[in-house]
Amino acid sequence: MIVSALLTSVGINTALCVLFFTLYSLLRKQPGNYEVYMPRLIAAGTSKRRSHFNLERLVPSAGWVAKAWRLSEDEILSLLGLDGVVYMRLITFSLKIFSFAGVISILVLLPVNCSGDALEEIDFANVTGSSLDIFTISNVKDGSNWLWFHFSAVYLVTGFICFMLYKEYKYISARRISYFYSSPPQPHQFTIVVRSIPISSSCSISESVDSFFKDLYPTTYLSHVVVRRTSKIQSLLNEAKKLGQRISQLQSDPSQQNHRHGCFFGLFGRKSNLRDHYEKKLEDIEENVRLKQSEASLAAQETQAAFVSFKSRYAAATAFHLHPAVNPIEWTTEQAPEPDDVYWPFFSESFMRRWISKLVVIVVCIVFSILFLIPVVFVQGLTNLSELEVLFPFLKSILTITVVSQVITGYLPSLILQLFLKMVPPVMEFLSSIQGYISQSNIEKSACNKVLWFTVWNVFFATVFSGSALNQVSIFLEPKAIPQKLAVAVPAQASFFIAYVVTSGWTSTSSELFRIIPLICSLIRKPCIREDDEFEVPSFPYHRDIPRVLLFGLLGITYFFLAPVILPFLLIYLCLAYIIYRNQYINVYAPKYETAGKFWPIVHNSMIFSLVLMHVIAVGIFALKKLSIASTLMVPLPVITLLFNEYCRKRFLPMFVAYSAESLIKKDREDPNDARMDEFYDKLVIAYKDPALRPIQSPSNTTTFRTPLLSS
Amino acid sequence: MIVSALLTSVGINTALCVLFFTLYSLLRKQPGNYEVYMPRLIAAGTSKRRSHFNLERLVPSAGWVAKAWRLSEDEILSLLGLDGVVYMRLITFSLKIFSFAGVISILVLLPVNCSGDALEEIDFANVTGSSLDIFTISNVKDGSNWLWFHFSAVYLVTGFICFMLYKEYKYISARRISYFYSSPPQPHQFTIVVRSIPISSSCSISESVDSFFKDLYPTTYLSHVVVRRTSKIQSLLNEAKKLGQRISQLQSDPSQQNHRHGCFFGLFGRKSNLRDHYEKKLEDIEENVRLKQSEASLAAQETQAAFVSFKSRYAAATAFHLHPAVNPIEWTTEQAPEPDDVYWPFFSESFMRRWISKLVVIVVCIVFSILFLIPVVFVQGLTNLSELEVLFPFLKSILTITVVSQVITGYLPSLILQLFLKMVPPVMEFLSSIQGYISQSNIEKSACNKVLWFTVWNVFFATVFSGSALNQVSIFLEPKAIPQKLAVAVPAQASFFIAYVVTSGWTSTSSELFRIIPLICSLIRKPCIREDDEFEVPSFPYHRDIPRVLLFGLLGITYFFLAPVILPFLLIYLCLAYIIYRNQYINVYAPKYETAGKFWPIVHNSMIFSLVLMHVIAVGIFALKKLSIASTLMVPLPVITLLFNEYCRKRFLPMFVAYSAESLIKKDREDPNDARMDEFYDKLVIAYKDPALRPIQSPSNTTTFRTPLLSS
Repeated sequence: MIVSALLTSVGINTALCVLFFTLYSLLRKQPGNYEVYMPRLIAAGTSKRRSHFNLERLVPSAGWVAKAWRLSEDEILSLLGLDGVVYMRLITFSLKIFSFAGVISILVLLPVNCSGDALEEIDFANVTGSSLDIFTISNVKDGSNWLWFHFSAVYLVTGFICFMLYKEYKYISARRISYFYSSPPQPHQFTIVVRSIPISSSCSISESVDSFFKDLYPTTYLSHVVVRRTSKIQSLLNEAKKLGQRISQLQSDPSQQNHRHGCFFGLFGRKSNLRDHYEKKLEDIEENVRLKQSEASLAAQETQAAFVSFKSRYAAATAFHLHPAVNPIEWTTEQAPEPDDVYWPFFSESFMRRWISKLVVIVVCIVFSILFLIPVVFVQGLTNLSELEVLFPFLKSILTITVVSQVITGYLPSLILQLFLKMVPPVMEFLSSIQGYISQSNIEKSACNKVLWFTVWNVFFATVFSGSALNQVSIFLEPKAIPQKLAVAVPAQASFFIAYVVTSGWTSTSSELFRIIPLICSLIRKPCIREDDEFEVPSFPYHRDIPRVLLFGLLGITYFFLAPVILPFLLIYLCLAYIIYRNQYINVYAPKYETAGKFWPIVHNSMIFSLVLMHVIAVGIFALKKLSIASTLMVPLPVITLLFNEYCRKRFLPMFVAYSAESLIKKDREDPNDARMDEFYDKLVIAYKDPALRPIQSPSNTTTFRTPLLSS
Repeated sequence: MIVSALLTSVGINTALCVLFFTLYSLLRKQPGNYEVYMPRLIAAGTSKRRSHFNLERLVPSAGWVAKAWRLSEDEILSLLGLDGVVYMRLITFSLKIFSFAGVISILVLLPVNCSGDALEEIDFANVTGSSLDIFTISNVKDGSNWLWFHFSAVYLVTGFICFMLYKEYKYISARRISYFYSSPPQPHQFTIVVRSIPISSSCSISESVDSFFKDLYPTTYLSHVVVRRTSKIQSLLNEAKKLGQRISQLQSDPSQQNHRHGCFFGLFGRKSNLRDHYEKKLEDIEENVRLKQSEASLAAQETQAAFVSFKSRYAAATAFHLHPAVNPIEWTTEQAPEPDDVYWPFFSESFMRRWISKLVVIVVCIVFSILFLIPVVFVQGLTNLSELEVLFPFLKSILTITVVSQVITGYLPSLILQLFLKMVPPVMEFLSSIQGYISQSNIEKSACNKVLWFTVWNVFFATVFSGSALNQVSIFLEPKAIPQKLAVAVPAQASFFIAYVVTSGWTSTSSELFRIIPLICSLIRKPCIREDDEFEVPSFPYHRDIPRVLLFGLLGITYFFLAPVILPFLLIYLCLAYIIYRNQYINVYAPKYETAGKFWPIVHNSMIFSLVLMHVIAVGIFALKKLSIASTLMVPLPVITLLFNEYCRKRFLPMFVAYSAESLIKKDREDPNDARMDEFYDKLVIAYKDPALRPIQSPSNTTTFRTPLLSS
């Protein structure tokens, strides 16, 4: 790729960013858009939906930037919980490491690369003088001693990243513990989920759960709730909800009614007829729901799963850690999710079925990854205009226009890739949901992992190897040759990934601010929605946004010594993300669940993977550049990094899996002093009742806004 | 290898076996050898060391075979505990699967192989007509439909083995649970080991352990014993023991004294002088020991480890499962071993040090494996006479003698390999002991694993690949080519492995019966040992014998469809082992510890590995034989086998790691009815006191015989 093509891409994206920022600054002040730009504030009641017109509304202002900048970590904690803090720390962590790497590579490596003359010698005729390659390591001569600067930079940056990773892991685990200490009693701390309950012919599942746990833990067992089959009730309830909305529309908006029916048929009676008809239908459904609900309480509708609550956190943890039954695949225990976090639809039942569905999901993921390669390969073809001309000869005349060719080579490929990648997070979330997880948070955590490795594979590896060879799978079957093949292929794709950072990073972050899709939805829906109608405060899509930042982390770590030019673009992206996500924390998102920092181990693992990949590439590069001592001396680095990771796994990971006896007992001892405990126990007994089995409510006033735990 | 060379080997080994059997039948009746052949019975007091002479003693008899045959499983359980049962079941399991495989392969595959004519066509001139290869799969023509018999046999035998593995795992885990239910209260069930106790400046480790656990578990905590540095006391005690033996010798055997000193110096006074000198020295040492023991009770001699006992099994299990402290690498918990099973010398201290020593041991194991290859490669060279002649031209005249060449090609190679392999189990046991394990049983379990993978690598893979290529490591760097390379190399070594089964299997089992090394030791030591002197009943070396049987299992599983001739030899070996080990159970071994069947998961994993290896070879063989449909249809089999293994891991493995809450609580509830419990608690408090800190005993009457747990 030539510099001008890159500049075209940067230009387009900068313009888009400025446009999005301006539009946002303007549109956010329009009360009609409050639901799009500050749903959180509306739900919390701090912002009204309508306000009087004033002139200020028409002038874009940047006050929100300052407000977002001033947000402290404790405020983030109270706004979005510890998970929000973890995401923000991921961004600041990336900012820190890439600032450090940036200083080294821009001040030292870039001059070294530029002063090399390897490329000039080889094909002076072909190089237009503006190729990006002169900024990369390719420009340094084979066997040159200047390469020792790159070598030292790799060691230095690895050391710095590992140090920062350790510090961050330590900080977040301490935060997690203090979060636990400061939290009020919560149902999920006192509860476990039991699955694969054996079916007994003599008694119902509810009875056998009760007798089993009463027998085992007579002093600490509190209560249980058996999960029931409620999918039919759920669908009836959804239908009732829709009808209820329709009826309330008819009631509140006679003009619309008149317009629609009055004008066409001229019969006023029609309106009340229609409402009566809907109301009758709704009554029928409600009757049906009540019938089904009473049916669901029968033993026949019990699944082999139950929530079992205990009188203390320690008792629940004991019951979870010590397998209760002799047969390990019966009475399997899990930590309970928060009541709002329970994922009811796929409470799949037997041990074997869950296991098979897990295997099926793995196979589907692999197939999906393979099929996804097709558009990626096509996209990669676009960056080489000559290939495109061979494929579509009729395009030749268009492609000779400079602007078109620059847009196509610089902007289009990563845009197409980005559009295809948009559909990955929902697909992966769906796959995780049928894997048998019982909570939304676990589904999103699993989806986060899936999306991460999917993008690493399909963006990084597929792009790197499809340029040179389609069969990247076969490369991993010859482990010996991996470093060399990576060393050849990775630097060649530097310019594509710079463009990718600019397109995918810059634009997607600004469009996150502008919330283009919710805005369009809101504009379409607006005419048919009442003012005080229910609306949902969105939750933060960790499974979409964490993998994205981590992919940029991977790009930064692997390219910082190959093509230092990538770092400034990356830093701009991170700064944008820093401000924009803080603003969205304030205005848009509300937490749906709280994993208390369980996303951080994913971040840590991904960073370690990026480091080791970078070392493998470095081994290959130094071998290719005929500096075999450096190549050999690079080998201990991945080993040390993996040992460091192993140490961190032992030192910190257990804290993210379960709380220690010390913490649990300390927390339990505070309870008797708490006057609210009796009330809490009463609530705990019914906390895990399936929402489908609760008495039918009127459809309004059911905003799904969840108060953050700390403030409650 | 030609048939006659194999027959030579079989002949030599059969003769050796008969010789060993006859000698054993004769020597075991001589009272002088009772200590070698029935130490267990002597220690138990059922056999006297001296008896009157009668003629029967000079006639070899086979009564012991019938006695060993009649031994029931419950008797084995009472003799050697569940571990003894597991080893015997490994042999009967192998007998079952290879009988099944043997019937199929001898009745179906062998005729198919013999009726093929692939080898005759290719090199009729070279084949002497007596090559073993005509019995192997190599003799079947490429692409022949007869190969479908081999294909079906692979599926059939895999299915049968998996079925048997499942049955056996289920049986042994049930046995383990019933063993637990029927055992009397034992100290290790009530105790955990705590390591990495943080050092506090204000109080001693003992105090901090006490306050920590009293605070966490006020109702269930019973007592603790901090481990102290006693290596110096231990060495003094050993010295004292030796001196004590020397003094008692001087006392009891004046003739020897007279002979030694009286004759040479003619001074009677010398004897009492020498005894006085020794006694004074012993008193000094004992004084010194008492001094050191009182020093050891000071805080400065405390290590960061302690045994913490609880009032119930459930409380101990809870403390083990729930990590006690917030920091996961402090206060790390382990299940306590039995008091006699504790391995005191290497109670290595900090978390980091243990971790590093573990890494060092892994590196040493790898280096040891690589260095070990040198003799193996040399041994392999011997089987190819032509190579030997090229290396040592002066041997040519000797090698032309038929008998010499047959001994060298048929017998010598596997004998040399076997001698080198003799040193592997002690080396691996030493390596495991410095890895930071705290019990003899864990050391042997770890050594068992090490020996297993060492022999698989250095006997199987090194033999298979050194014949064709020295660089077998490089083969594993190209995973795609593995099946094909195995398919070429494995069948070529069939005759070597048949000879190996005969030499290593038959002879080593008979020499186990004959106990050649203990016999020689006893003959050397006899003159200088008193009649009622202490002697040690040997414990069963699981880490030596389980890997041996498993290696033969690997050979049987991988070769049953390639060279069915191996199976009869294997079955003879297993029958020999069945009788001989039962006899040794009765007469020789006493249990040193009880893992309650924890060796079985090693057996299971090894069998699964053998199956998958066999499938990979089958994939390669069918591809090589140009029956690509069979090759493709073979691919699902390893996948199914691994899924089966995964299921077994979930279904059974947890039962071998820890007992369930249900079992523990059920067992605890029996305790209050037991009158012995008060006495037991008193014993429990001092059960884990370091033997070096106990008051000095007189050195006699300290037989280390351990009564099996069930009979106590």
